[in-house]
Amino acid sequence: MNVELISVGTEFLIGKSINTNTFYLAERLASLGYQMNEQIVVGDEISQIQRVLKGSIERSDIVFVMGGLGAMKDDVTKKAVVEALDIPLVENPIVKNQIRNRFQDKKISKISENIWRQAMTPKGAVLLENKQDIIPGFIISFEGKKIILLPGNPKQLREMVDQKVMLYLKDWQPSIICSEIIKIMGVTEQDVMEKLGTLMESDNPKITTYSQTGEVHLRIIAKTESKKDGKKLVTPILEEIKKCFGDLVYSTKESETLEENVVSLLKKHNITVSTAESCTGGNLAGRLVNVSGASNVFGQGFVTYSNKAKKKLIGVSKNTLKKYGAVSKQTAKEMAEGVSVTTGADVGIGITGVAGPEGGTDEKPVGLVYIGCYVKEKAIAREYHFVGDRNDIREQSVMAALALLRVMILENYK
Amino acid sequence: MNVELISVGTEFLIGKSINTNTFYLAERLASLGYQMNEQIVVGDEISQIQRVLKGSIERSDIVFVMGGLGAMKDDVTKKAVVEALDIPLVENPIVKNQIRNRFQDKKISKISENIWRQAMTPKGAVLLENKQDIIPGFIISFEGKKIILLPGNPKQLREMVDQKVMLYLKDWQPSIICSEIIKIMGVTEQDVMEKLGTLMESDNPKITTYSQTGEVHLRIIAKTESKKDGKKLVTPILEEIKKCFGDLVYSTKESETLEENVVSLLKKHNITVSTAESCTGGNLAGRLVNVSGASNVFGQGFVTYSNKAKKKLIGVSKNTLKKYGAVSKQTAKEMAEGVSVTTGADVGIGITGVAGPEGGTDEKPVGLVYIGCYVKEKAIAREYHFVGDRNDIREQSVMAALALLRVMILENYK
Repeated sequence: MNVELISVGTEFLIGKSINTNTFYLAERLASLGYQMNEQIVVGDEISQIQRVLKGSIERSDIVFVMGGLGAMKDDVTKKAVVEALDIPLVENPIVKNQIRNRFQDKKISKISENIWRQAMTPKGAVLLENKQDIIPGFIISFEGKKIILLPGNPKQLREMVDQKVMLYLKDWQPSIICSEIIKIMGVTEQDVMEKLGTLMESDNPKITTYSQTGEVHLRIIAKTESKKDGKKLVTPILEEIKKCFGDLVYSTKESETLEENVVSLLKKHNITVSTAESCTGGNLAGRLVNVSGASNVFGQGFVTYSNKAKKKLIGVSKNTLKKYGAVSKQTAKEMAEGVSVTTGADVGIGITGVAGPEGGTDEKPVGLVYIGCYVKEKAIAREYHFVGDRNDIREQSVMAALALLRVMILENYK
Repeated sequence: MNVELISVGTEFLIGKSINTNTFYLAERLASLGYQMNEQIVVGDEISQIQRVLKGSIERSDIVFVMGGLGAMKDDVTKKAVVEALDIPLVENPIVKNQIRNRFQDKKISKISENIWRQAMTPKGAVLLENKQDIIPGFIISFEGKKIILLPGNPKQLREMVDQKVMLYLKDWQPSIICSEIIKIMGVTEQDVMEKLGTLMESDNPKITTYSQTGEVHLRIIAKTESKKDGKKLVTPILEEIKKCFGDLVYSTKESETLEENVVSLLKKHNITVSTAESCTGGNLAGRLVNVSGASNVFGQGFVTYSNKAKKKLIGVSKNTLKKYGAVSKQTAKEMAEGVSVTTGADVGIGITGVAGPEGGTDEKPVGLVYIGCYVKEKAIAREYHFVGDRNDIREQSVMAALALLRVMILENYK
């Protein structure tokens, strides 16, 4: 089954917004084994929308049209699509009711003509309810093809896709698709390719790598006749990858992030952690606090950017700083131990490095980072060499610290 | 002049990578007054690239084709384009030399056939040197139109665009374009629309808003006969906007971020700052450390996520926490004062709030954030009500803290 995405919005054409909808849908569709032909962005103009829609319908079985469904003057997508397909708009009592109820809730009595126009829906279309707004989505059947209209607001679109559209897409896919994700921390795409070798060349199941800062996600997709057959194909590959990467595999859940996984692990073992950050300047703490409920395991952290702060706040010794320098294995270890002792947290993490672009030397170049971890009264530190600009290096450092923290907990708390 | 963007890469079609190149180029092209018709993504297939290229050339004066220029098997863009336009490839001695030199520098003697193929360039094309790699870009003239081939790597593409392509684009634009940016912190797009009113409806100069978390950028573009006329049109509008928003206007430089501006301001007045963060969990410190050389003004910060940390590390009083709660104006003030006194920094910032999704009450709902600032022995705090998910609220808090810091410095240090 072929699919194509049309995004409607002048905001994309002038670089006002980044098109995250396309990125999101592309991954969801790939996970169901759909083949994507093309992604197109056009402005809010009826003739342009109709032109690209006709081309897409010719080429593909399913065409998504996203954006331009609202009540503003430049929201012309619905009009453009129904005119192009010669489908009438009819008043939909369900949507009409929803509009009335929502405005009653907001205690607004006067509802404008533009808003009421939302109740006019393409005849015969499947309605996709929008829980966050009055703008519904639609699935239109046309000459054996499907045209799916979705709101442009990314949060509304994602909810509609996850709650509704994915179910239809699974149904329409003629083969049974078995799709699993496996997330590996502390590796690069190249590491994965090298380690998995010929496994990566498998055609069914097909393995796709999704590389992110400090981690790689692998999606394994099998096309089969039955769910059971799919499992049979995917499971041995999953096991093979787990064996290959051991503790570096941190999740097989679709939406779990590394920080969520680490926070759950800390919670599970009832461990508290504290952070002392130099080059990452608070970003590791910030990442932990991303997780709602992190307060159970993370209460305090230090940004010890200056040497003075390293000494005063977390007791790194003057001698260590003088003898080995602020960017050294010894300092990272003392930062980790110091922050754990100072705060009384079970585990301490210390990060120190040269993020650049200034400050690098032959001996300690830009990208050199040490991460210390203090756990069960023992401090260790690892050396990393990251590549990229200041931001890249800091991001990689944060991910490496989360990965090290995870490994150290797994090793020390059984 | 009309322009169109074609991105080549199967990675976009399966949601492996987000297409930042299109976003970047769209903004740059809009800043020069170009009109964009369409943005297209296709896979690494010669026939597909040729199909969309033909359509784009029919519609537009300038067509960018990005990605697929490398030495890998699936890099077929150059071949697809020259075949479609019936232009021969010829060996280019400059590129050949560059390849030889670069590989000599790396002490690699055997250069593969694929690499040498990079030296074959479209006959008559303008060569765009790639300073980060051996893959050059090209400008091909074809039947009065321009086809511009760029590498898909975002950093290489950006450098090539900024250093080279922008100069050509300025030349080709038949009108003189005068384009200025003005950045306003602590406002929403709606604030800007309301305050500027009819000014926003101006056709020449045209004003476009670019909304980001916690700030809005306005681009003012005038099309005129001469540079002088352009200035005459743009300057009064810039002045009007500055008058309207006062100290909230933080920059008119193309690439300056709010944190860069704040760090420069601190440096200029020789002021040091220290941070105490609760709900933002280190993200404000992280944002300051984004700026290379921030160490001159920022040496240490605290993540005081728990009440215990607020008391112990920065001396927030037990009474205040008990009487007013952790999320209160009083606590924010004491955090700001406490961190300044503890660290000896000239200015202290304290952030406390309910980032959600849990933890909200009727009295203190999700999105309620207090930011304190202690400067010249006086603490103030402001109340904010942010909307969005946990991450949105934390991001807005960081931006609001930077904005408050800037305002307080401007008020207290003349």
